[in-house]
Amino acid sequence: MWEKRMEWPLTGVAVLFLGAYAWPILQPSLGSTGRVWCEVVTWLAWGLFALDYVVRLVQSPDKPRFLRRHVLDLLVIVLPLLRPLRLLRLVAMLNVLNRTAALALRGRVVVYFVGATVLIVFCAALAVLEAERPIEEAGIRNFPDALWWAVTTITTVGYGDRYPVSGTGRLIAVGLMVAGIALLGVVTATFASWLVRRVEEVEATSQTVTRAQIAELSREIAELRAALAASERKDL
Amino acid sequence: MWEKRMEWPLTGVAVLFLGAYAWPILQPSLGSTGRVWCEVVTWLAWGLFALDYVVRLVQSPDKPRFLRRHVLDLLVIVLPLLRPLRLLRLVAMLNVLNRTAALALRGRVVVYFVGATVLIVFCAALAVLEAERPIEEAGIRNFPDALWWAVTTITTVGYGDRYPVSGTGRLIAVGLMVAGIALLGVVTATFASWLVRRVEEVEATSQTVTRAQIAELSREIAELRAALAASERKDL
Amino acid sequence: MWEKRMEWPLTGVAVLFLGAYAWPILQPSLGSTGRVWCEVVTWLAWGLFALDYVVRLVQSPDKPRFLRRHVLDLLVIVLPLLRPLRLLRLVAMLNVLNRTAALALRGRVVVYFVGATVLIVFCAALAVLEAERPIEEAGIRNFPDALWWAVTTITTVGYGDRYPVSGTGRLIAVGLMVAGIALLGVVTATFASWLVRRVEEVEATSQTVTRAQIAELSREIAELRAALAASERKDL
Amino acid sequence: MWEKRMEWPLTGVAVLFLGAYAWPILQPSLGSTGRVWCEVVTWLAWGLFALDYVVRLVQSPDKPRFLRRHVLDLLVIVLPLLRPLRLLRLVAMLNVLNRTAALALRGRVVVYFVGATVLIVFCAALAVLEAERPIEEAGIRNFPDALWWAVTTITTVGYGDRYPVSGTGRLIAVGLMVAGIALLGVVTATFASWLVRRVEEVEATSQTVTRAQIAELSREIAELRAALAASERKDL
Repeated sequence: MWEKRMEWPLTGVAVLFLGAYAWPILQPSLGSTGRVWCEVVTWLAWGLFALDYVVRLVQSPDKPRFLRRHVLDLLVIVLPLLRPLRLLRLVAMLNVLNRTAALALRGRVVVYFVGATVLIVFCAALAVLEAERPIEEAGIRNFPDALWWAVTTITTVGYGDRYPVSGTGRLIAVGLMVAGIALLGVVTATFASWLVRRVEEVEATSQTVTRAQIAELSREIAELRAALAASERKDL
Repeated sequence: MWEKRMEWPLTGVAVLFLGAYAWPILQPSLGSTGRVWCEVVTWLAWGLFALDYVVRLVQSPDKPRFLRRHVLDLLVIVLPLLRPLRLLRLVAMLNVLNRTAALALRGRVVVYFVGATVLIVFCAALAVLEAERPIEEAGIRNFPDALWWAVTTITTVGYGDRYPVSGTGRLIAVGLMVAGIALLGVVTATFASWLVRRVEEVEATSQTVTRAQIAELSREIAELRAALAASERKDL
Repeated sequence: MWEKRMEWPLTGVAVLFLGAYAWPILQPSLGSTGRVWCEVVTWLAWGLFALDYVVRLVQSPDKPRFLRRHVLDLLVIVLPLLRPLRLLRLVAMLNVLNRTAALALRGRVVVYFVGATVLIVFCAALAVLEAERPIEEAGIRNFPDALWWAVTTITTVGYGDRYPVSGTGRLIAVGLMVAGIALLGVVTATFASWLVRRVEEVEATSQTVTRAQIAELSREIAELRAALAASERKDL
Repeated sequence: MWEKRMEWPLTGVAVLFLGAYAWPILQPSLGSTGRVWCEVVTWLAWGLFALDYVVRLVQSPDKPRFLRRHVLDLLVIVLPLLRPLRLLRLVAMLNVLNRTAALALRGRVVVYFVGATVLIVFCAALAVLEAERPIEEAGIRNFPDALWWAVTTITTVGYGDRYPVSGTGRLIAVGLMVAGIALLGVVTATFASWLVRRVEEVEATSQTVTRAQIAELSREIAELRAALAASERKDL
């Protein structure tokens, strides 16, 4: 299978992409040779991601369904603004690590979302820094500030000491806010699901009683049957 | 049925209304002829919405119940401030598109709320811009800023770089905040419902056991009955 | 019963208290005679609330339990800062109105919390205005601003264009924030409960099958019994 | 058992640690002798916590499992930044108080989280004050401001009138925001669990019907058996 075999190589490509994407943003003093190299790696990674998408599309038996289910994959490849989202592949990797760890459903949901949140905050900080740095009056001008802003946004705290002013920066912020609402929803839902379950377990005793009654019924019917059989044997 | 037949025409009217409402706000330099035309379309749309309300009221068999259940419809027609809410009819349209798509309950809830949220943010941005533009010291003075403010408000982030200062603008903001809380609630609840369900599915095996036991009981009773019938036949 | 008979009179006292509490805050230009009257009404209302607490304590059969269960009642009477909370009695009144309306549990929870939220926002705005007005550099200096601040706080938006600076004002703010978190929790939980229920209803068909099987079992046993009775009658 | 016997002494050590940690922060004018004493108590408490960790590690039968399950304990001891978290031991104490009070699961969750929240807010205010005081342009310069900031952060309101500017202060803020999201999740989930349960109780009548039918079945089988026995006796 293409997808299985390409999982690890593409994750490696995603890590390289992350490095090539982050380096020129974190090192504004980087020389032009370094910048060109990062650009080349970024484009190569893009090519490999696009190739992977095309191969998977060609190999899929139900093509319209594949297109419908992988809309995000296509957008991530086509839109330059969504470039940092290509790193979500690294979250997909948690899937693999996880398969061996054999966690329960709730545990897996938590691991996914913590991983995705950390990656989203990191990439959003990089992307917003890239978008805001050329603007004179911007408040976000170095990576610690960008990271701090990303965290206050995803948690919906929003102090307002730093905020993006460019259009691209604001689009990234909207994405972060949506992610923040989803994050809050997942945390709450996971805990609610755990609590509902625990409370039900305490009340499960009454259901066990019902089950015991059914077992009792079965036993009585068996005895009844034996008695009938005995009475028949006597009749003969 | 009036309601069924008027669904599509009234949606068309709502789209026209949206255009006539948004145009003079987005184009402050619009000439007086254009403004008059937009005004005329807005009033015509209002007339059609009011007519639709009256016809539905006259046709309903239980009039007090209709009045109670359509309070919002009446408010939207009577109060000029709630004008943008007339566009919620467009969300009602999702209902139609959806009927064909045959989504599950949770899917429908998600589609509704995403549609409603996008429409609410867009209309609130228009309405707040209309309310704030005449004020000298207002921070919200163009559409991108208004949209940015609406998103930071509905997600309850609230940076505070832009905020309404007029009474009307603040009322719109309160509506957006309430919508934001509802949005957060819906996201969380939908995910919680999905998670609770998935966890229950895993535990459903124990219930299947109970059902198997009942099937076993039924089978034994049938056999018992056959034995009794046989014993009776022998008696004859 | 004291409690039943005093319900309506004490609600009237609470309304009077609200008027006497709000008037001097909303009308800073109120003369000293008006202020004295408001003060008198406030103290009389306090006396009646205290009397009601004492009578209920004396009449209760299990006094330690009454003290434990009505800690908030006592605090509201003893602490001058919690004065506005005496108006929560008005929310308790929703209870009465509701009893006749015969709403379902979820409906009642919603009615309570909407009523409580509106009252809390209104009282917090009054209380914060009283606390902040004497301070020179305070941002909250009139009632519309106080109301606007209260709404941005309870929804956890927190623009930061207005915020309390006095100790009392900040304490009121903390109360509002806690109320806001509770409000968000109630909205989400109510919707989650509704959604979980609706999804379960769809899946309830499989449980109905089980119930139908039990009915089938009962019918078969009845027939079996009739057959046995007939066989006995024939034997005679 | 070491753990049982050391519970109360270590809680006493935690209280001492809290005093020695808070005193020099709350009293910036404290003389050098007082500072040295506080330093000594802090280090002694650290020594005892480290000793407790080592003893528990040595006594545990499954050492790798102990290491995995007590990662936070180790971090709290090793990282100087996490010093205030040592006070979480005081929350663990609620466990003991609670065991006697015999609360239900939901009640216990509420008590834990209220206790933990108050302690986290208090310690975060202390820690942020310690981190921000040396910085010239910081907005958090006294304990009431620090406490106010901590509350606006954990509730995700985030006015932005005060915010940390140092790296350490921002790290503490991130911790508070995460705690705030968890808090919101717990409040919502607890209420949702209660509401789901209450709604189910109302619908439990239909399940009681099923149980009554099973009882009816049992009774009929017993009668059937008696009739069979009687018929057998007559046969003899």
